[in-house]
Amino acid sequence: MDQDLLAVLFGDPFAVMNTIGLIAFALVGSSKAIREEFDVLGITIVGLAMAFAGGVTRDLLVTRVPLALQSPIEICLGLLGVGLAIVLSVVLTAPETHPIALVADAIGLAAFATTGAIVATEAGVSEFGIIAVATINAVGGGAVADILLDRSPFILFEDFYASCAVLGGSAYWIVGALGAAGSTAAAVCAIVTVATRLAAVTYDWHLPTVQNLE
Amino acid sequence: MDQDLLAVLFGDPFAVMNTIGLIAFALVGSSKAIREEFDVLGITIVGLAMAFAGGVTRDLLVTRVPLALQSPIEICLGLLGVGLAIVLSVVLTAPETHPIALVADAIGLAAFATTGAIVATEAGVSEFGIIAVATINAVGGGAVADILLDRSPFILFEDFYASCAVLGGSAYWIVGALGAAGSTAAAVCAIVTVATRLAAVTYDWHLPTVQNLE
Amino acid sequence: MDQDLLAVLFGDPFAVMNTIGLIAFALVGSSKAIREEFDVLGITIVGLAMAFAGGVTRDLLVTRVPLALQSPIEICLGLLGVGLAIVLSVVLTAPETHPIALVADAIGLAAFATTGAIVATEAGVSEFGIIAVATINAVGGGAVADILLDRSPFILFEDFYASCAVLGGSAYWIVGALGAAGSTAAAVCAIVTVATRLAAVTYDWHLPTVQNLE
Repeated sequence: MDQDLLAVLFGDPFAVMNTIGLIAFALVGSSKAIREEFDVLGITIVGLAMAFAGGVTRDLLVTRVPLALQSPIEICLGLLGVGLAIVLSVVLTAPETHPIALVADAIGLAAFATTGAIVATEAGVSEFGIIAVATINAVGGGAVADILLDRSPFILFEDFYASCAVLGGSAYWIVGALGAAGSTAAAVCAIVTVATRLAAVTYDWHLPTVQNLE
Repeated sequence: MDQDLLAVLFGDPFAVMNTIGLIAFALVGSSKAIREEFDVLGITIVGLAMAFAGGVTRDLLVTRVPLALQSPIEICLGLLGVGLAIVLSVVLTAPETHPIALVADAIGLAAFATTGAIVATEAGVSEFGIIAVATINAVGGGAVADILLDRSPFILFEDFYASCAVLGGSAYWIVGALGAAGSTAAAVCAIVTVATRLAAVTYDWHLPTVQNLE
Repeated sequence: MDQDLLAVLFGDPFAVMNTIGLIAFALVGSSKAIREEFDVLGITIVGLAMAFAGGVTRDLLVTRVPLALQSPIEICLGLLGVGLAIVLSVVLTAPETHPIALVADAIGLAAFATTGAIVATEAGVSEFGIIAVATINAVGGGAVADILLDRSPFILFEDFYASCAVLGGSAYWIVGALGAAGSTAAAVCAIVTVATRLAAVTYDWHLPTVQNLE
């Protein structure tokens, strides 16, 4: 934990991305719960679910006790995002759509996809497994938050979002299969995920539905 | 299992609370499914999900095979609650709102929060982890039941309910940090949870929404 | 994996059933997502969730890394079902209700219930645990797919479907308790599940609701 904090303060870029991601994800989840008029505890639970459910699911899939239950500093970052959502809700109707929030969310998506790919590789799963765990780590929290809000996960029909994690996880696997070091694969995964997500937001990319294809 | 039964018969107060809780939780879940006109198997599944999903999630988080899959007597208690819900639905529209059901539910909430806190402590998670696992153990079943019924978990916006488990888990942690024995911390956790829940029902406590705060 | 493929090609009946089931389940899930106008990635995720969420949940309950993350051939079968759903959606409104799909789905239900019963027995759970894991393995994927589609799991109120897995799992337990070999119990489980499901489809069986009983 303290090592995480030192890593942030002294500039490990991945730890910086993870920190930004936890705050941004909790902010997004809590902002949605505020608009549904959930009470303060419900807002906190949805925010923390958005920030941590992806990582918890990743840890369950590789059968280890979730890191989120062991790391106080990560929880504090999540609670900071919840608090920010409450404060910002006074001045903004939808703080999670502010450009700064969108960029922070893209950074978190990249950090979580990369963590998922690394953990999956260590667990010795198949190539598909690496992409699946990277995607689940990145978008699982958003899916759980939407289910708690009684809606279909937005990642399934809106936006070019989970696709970025799929592309990042695929890049991780390809770069690794080409013989590159794990740290190179991780960097490529993070860059592909964040770049495709920012491009998708900027140029309003969408995947087609089957109805579009016909 | 037989030890559990003996413990109930000869007066271990915690086993008595757990027994009451399993029956009450299954009754509450099944009663909701009956009103949604689910079939008999659906009623049974929602009732058992309400009684056991919290404990199963707790066991998955600490990576052990769920106790519910190993203990026949606990399943029988859950099925007893399902049967009670079906019988009572003939005479009562909403048996889960009867005062006896509300008290039994509060006792179950306390028993499950306490079990969660104990298991989390044994698994060596952080202070936040203890409170999180206690809360998930206590309210996870209700959340899963509501998701199966296609609604937002009621714990997120109605009522002072999950808050009681958060307070109980916090009390467990504080009392333990002060150096008390585990059995003392467990007793304080159970008493705080059940007392705040009964007070919340009696005095109609609610947590504020952000809209209330403004 | 290659052994699985050989087993299919050279006629292990259980591997044939599992193969048919994975394709059929992915087809059913994806067909539902297509009608909800999800995008191509959303269609793939719902199809794979329908095919694999039951088996993944089974593996989590016995605390092992999910096979679906380790077996490339199983994922390819799921993706084949997704592709079939997209192709068939051009000519059929609801390909999952075609008689061939219904028979394939019944075969998958039987294969997954049997796998669940075998894995649960190996994990040493109780009699109830065997029936529960068989049922979760068989219908968990359908339940998760429906939750992603923001509806109550259809298994809870429509149709005689999960009941077939409950009957199959019960048959597995009874035959095993009578002293039969594991392979006999597995065959009986598969036959009971597929036969009751096909009878339920043919004769339009339903379980009663409590409202019917009154």
